Amino acid sequence: MSNASPGWAEFWECLFSPGSVALIGASDVPGSWGFNIMQRLVQSGSKRTYPVNPSHPFIRGTTAFRSVLDIQDTVDLAVIAVPAQRVPGVMQECVNKGIKAAVVISGGFAEVDDEGKALERRVVEIARQGGLRFVGPNTMGHVNTHAGFTILGFMGKVSPGPVGFAAQSGNMGSRIMQMVMNQGVGFSKFVCTGNEATVRLEDYLEYFSQDEDTEAIALYIEGLREAKRFLRLAKMTTLRKPVVVMKSGSTRGAMQAARSHTGALAGSDAVYEAAFRQAGVIRASTEEEMADTLAALIKQPLPRGRRVAILTMGGGFGVVSAEACEREGLEIAELSESTISKLDSMLPSRWPHGNPVDLAGMDTMGEVIVINCLSALIEDEGVDSVLSLVALHRYQPLRPGASQLSDKGNTDARAESLKTLGEKARQLGKPVLSVGALPPPPGERSAAEVPWDSFSIYPSPQRAARVLHQLLWYRRYLESVRDC
Amino acid sequence: MSNASPGWAEFWECLFSPGSVALIGASDVPGSWGFNIMQRLVQSGSKRTYPVNPSHPFIRGTTAFRSVLDIQDTVDLAVIAVPAQRVPGVMQECVNKGIKAAVVISGGFAEVDDEGKALERRVVEIARQGGLRFVGPNTMGHVNTHAGFTILGFMGKVSPGPVGFAAQSGNMGSRIMQMVMNQGVGFSKFVCTGNEATVRLEDYLEYFSQDEDTEAIALYIEGLREAKRFLRLAKMTTLRKPVVVMKSGSTRGAMQAARSHTGALAGSDAVYEAAFRQAGVIRASTEEEMADTLAALIKQPLPRGRRVAILTMGGGFGVVSAEACEREGLEIAELSESTISKLDSMLPSRWPHGNPVDLAGMDTMGEVIVINCLSALIEDEGVDSVLSLVALHRYQPLRPGASQLSDKGNTDARAESLKTLGEKARQLGKPVLSVGALPPPPGERSAAEVPWDSFSIYPSPQRAARVLHQLLWYRRYLESVRDC
Repeated sequence: MSNASPGWAEFWECLFSPGSVALIGASDVPGSWGFNIMQRLVQSGSKRTYPVNPSHPFIRGTTAFRSVLDIQDTVDLAVIAVPAQRVPGVMQECVNKGIKAAVVISGGFAEVDDEGKALERRVVEIARQGGLRFVGPNTMGHVNTHAGFTILGFMGKVSPGPVGFAAQSGNMGSRIMQMVMNQGVGFSKFVCTGNEATVRLEDYLEYFSQDEDTEAIALYIEGLREAKRFLRLAKMTTLRKPVVVMKSGSTRGAMQAARSHTGALAGSDAVYEAAFRQAGVIRASTEEEMADTLAALIKQPLPRGRRVAILTMGGGFGVVSAEACEREGLEIAELSESTISKLDSMLPSRWPHGNPVDLAGMDTMGEVIVINCLSALIEDEGVDSVLSLVALHRYQPLRPGASQLSDKGNTDARAESLKTLGEKARQLGKPVLSVGALPPPPGERSAAEVPWDSFSIYPSPQRAARVLHQLLWYRRYLESVRDC
Repeated sequence: MSNASPGWAEFWECLFSPGSVALIGASDVPGSWGFNIMQRLVQSGSKRTYPVNPSHPFIRGTTAFRSVLDIQDTVDLAVIAVPAQRVPGVMQECVNKGIKAAVVISGGFAEVDDEGKALERRVVEIARQGGLRFVGPNTMGHVNTHAGFTILGFMGKVSPGPVGFAAQSGNMGSRIMQMVMNQGVGFSKFVCTGNEATVRLEDYLEYFSQDEDTEAIALYIEGLREAKRFLRLAKMTTLRKPVVVMKSGSTRGAMQAARSHTGALAGSDAVYEAAFRQAGVIRASTEEEMADTLAALIKQPLPRGRRVAILTMGGGFGVVSAEACEREGLEIAELSESTISKLDSMLPSRWPHGNPVDLAGMDTMGEVIVINCLSALIEDEGVDSVLSLVALHRYQPLRPGASQLSDKGNTDARAESLKTLGEKARQLGKPVLSVGALPPPPGERSAAEVPWDSFSIYPSPQRAARVLHQLLWYRRYLESVRDC
């Protein structure tokens, strides 16, 4: 494996946890890359940040160096944000300085034309001779939340968490990260891979596969440069950590666009699809599906089978959700007699006595009933997962006289009973997904309100059903491999 | 047509624009139907509202009547919200009072069991003999925004607008209405059809087809009771007004759920699908798609062909969007030389010179360039529609020194230039869809900020591409029919 070959361990350490950083092309011009990245480095509190700019002696009020060679300290990581034509010279200086890891932000290389390709080859040659590896060129940077390190000029705070993410696009990366964070899940590391001149998507996969901070791996792919290696790595990795991929760029116009984006050759979609399936890689077809699936993989157990129980506030929504589940290959569970009689004791006699469980008379009931119904469904041995169309975190009791539930003590009690429900579901290995609007972002949420870790909330039954399909598919994959 | 038969015109008038309303089952118990509906009637400022309740002499502080028969005034509309067993008696009194239109909110009829079916037949028989038609039973009510009339107990304000909507589910109806309103589009009328004992979905379609306040028709369907009549009506209607349908309940478990929801028989999905296509009915597969499509039908012209131009802020997002379009049967337009040279004069030399048009260097450019680029794309004769991945209403110029654009005068100028762009697109018959987060609801929006009427904004390129597919399909349908 390439990560075992010389220099890789040092490279990853310098890339993700640098003790000192030189920003070549640091700038005082707001909106420029050199400005935004400088901003991030200062914000992330890196004590040893060295701005380099040959024509401005001061950047943000501190001394700038004319060249990395003028820096007295050792430099772990060089971040290069100068025009493409200047990159070979700058790279030579980095090599001369003994730097082993760099990030080339600058664009204008293989993604543009043949001239750019030749320029990129020159830069690679210089780096290779000096034993230097670099991310990019044509990248938007990377982040290591656990080390508090970021050079993502285009994005604010990335929440720490268990997802490692490599993306062949900065803006798709930021879109997907934002969606995952909206689901209350964060990232260990993110890297925008750019043109992958010396470090490839396959290298990041191998790194994440061994990284202890990473429990699930996300990849946005336009084209693979080492498809066979990718599949070998993926096959080993998915046995221990789920890998979720969004692969785009397969249709005619998209393929052309991908070529001028990062120079990647997108290749046949059917081939990718078959290969992913064989390697246990979960494939998402949209950004939303990718975020939805990642969040569930972190929060939910994998369901044992297809049988879903649905709790709904109204008939039509139950019908639509049942259809959504069935279209995703799931089954509407047949509830046991014991469950039916438990529900009977809680619901008005005219409830439809079947699944979906319709609480049409909801507005005359209290929240406790919702939680007790869900609990009964979770306990049913014929149920593998539960879909609640009552948005658990938002639900407010409407029963007359129940308003006292909204005071502090009762809010805590409510959070407590939801937490107990979540724990039961996890113990029994049954995912519980809820449909509703997402809660406000972490900072604006009251701590007592939602045991957010236990629940996955999706805006539509179709998206929730798709997630259950993906979780089930992954479980079945793992079972089939382990049986061999 | 049934609407021409005796009594229908009077029924519709009494249903949607009643001069006087009796609410039988009016209640002071918060959360009950009788309470919520009373609330709406009072809020909607209906001067002649008569609460009826045999056991409470006062409701909301005003005199309640023991029976409709005790009301001295004529009653245009009776709204019935009493337990199912009491409905036959109440209905008889309505008939005796000479009432011609009613809404039976109460559930517990054909959707429950054979006994319920028999009860429903009795109610229908009583009504029929008295020449009374009624919505429901088992309905959540209706609204006529243009008359300021609503008995939708479960939902706040419905915005007025051009969409007429009949739904075989109250909660799906409210979900879809909310989504359409979030897109800045409102409703002429909405009705939850319930069990359709005397007034069927086909009747509402026929009514909307002739209603002058209704420019587009939305239908949420679980099962049709008069499929042939539906298709005949739809075929005539779609020549003048678009009809968008969400049809659910076709898979096994969903079919069963639909039966216990409104007693509807869902039937084979393939048969419905073929019939809809033949009648020019646009079918949406999710609530989101239904709302997206309706909003675009109101705001956008129908595209003449498949060729889409894409404006993007980053390569990856362009690739994903191109793929989304192609998967929906659209084509990535080949830009004319004249367009390329117009763009050349505005963009840095390294832009990819193709479609998607990638403004990768966006952060060094002003907003004027975005509008000018879009304008160039709209003018290209080889372009049928434009997809902007720059969210027009949200976009803030990032260029150094451009911050003065955010002051009042420049905000107006910005709105003005967006408006001009929208008008040009409409004149040339080209839809312009934008991808981004939706703007805040109407009340919270600054008037000058967005010429919201001209633009359709969707949260993902996949959803925008799907809308373009639907608009194009409808245009092709209309062309094929008119050619005959």
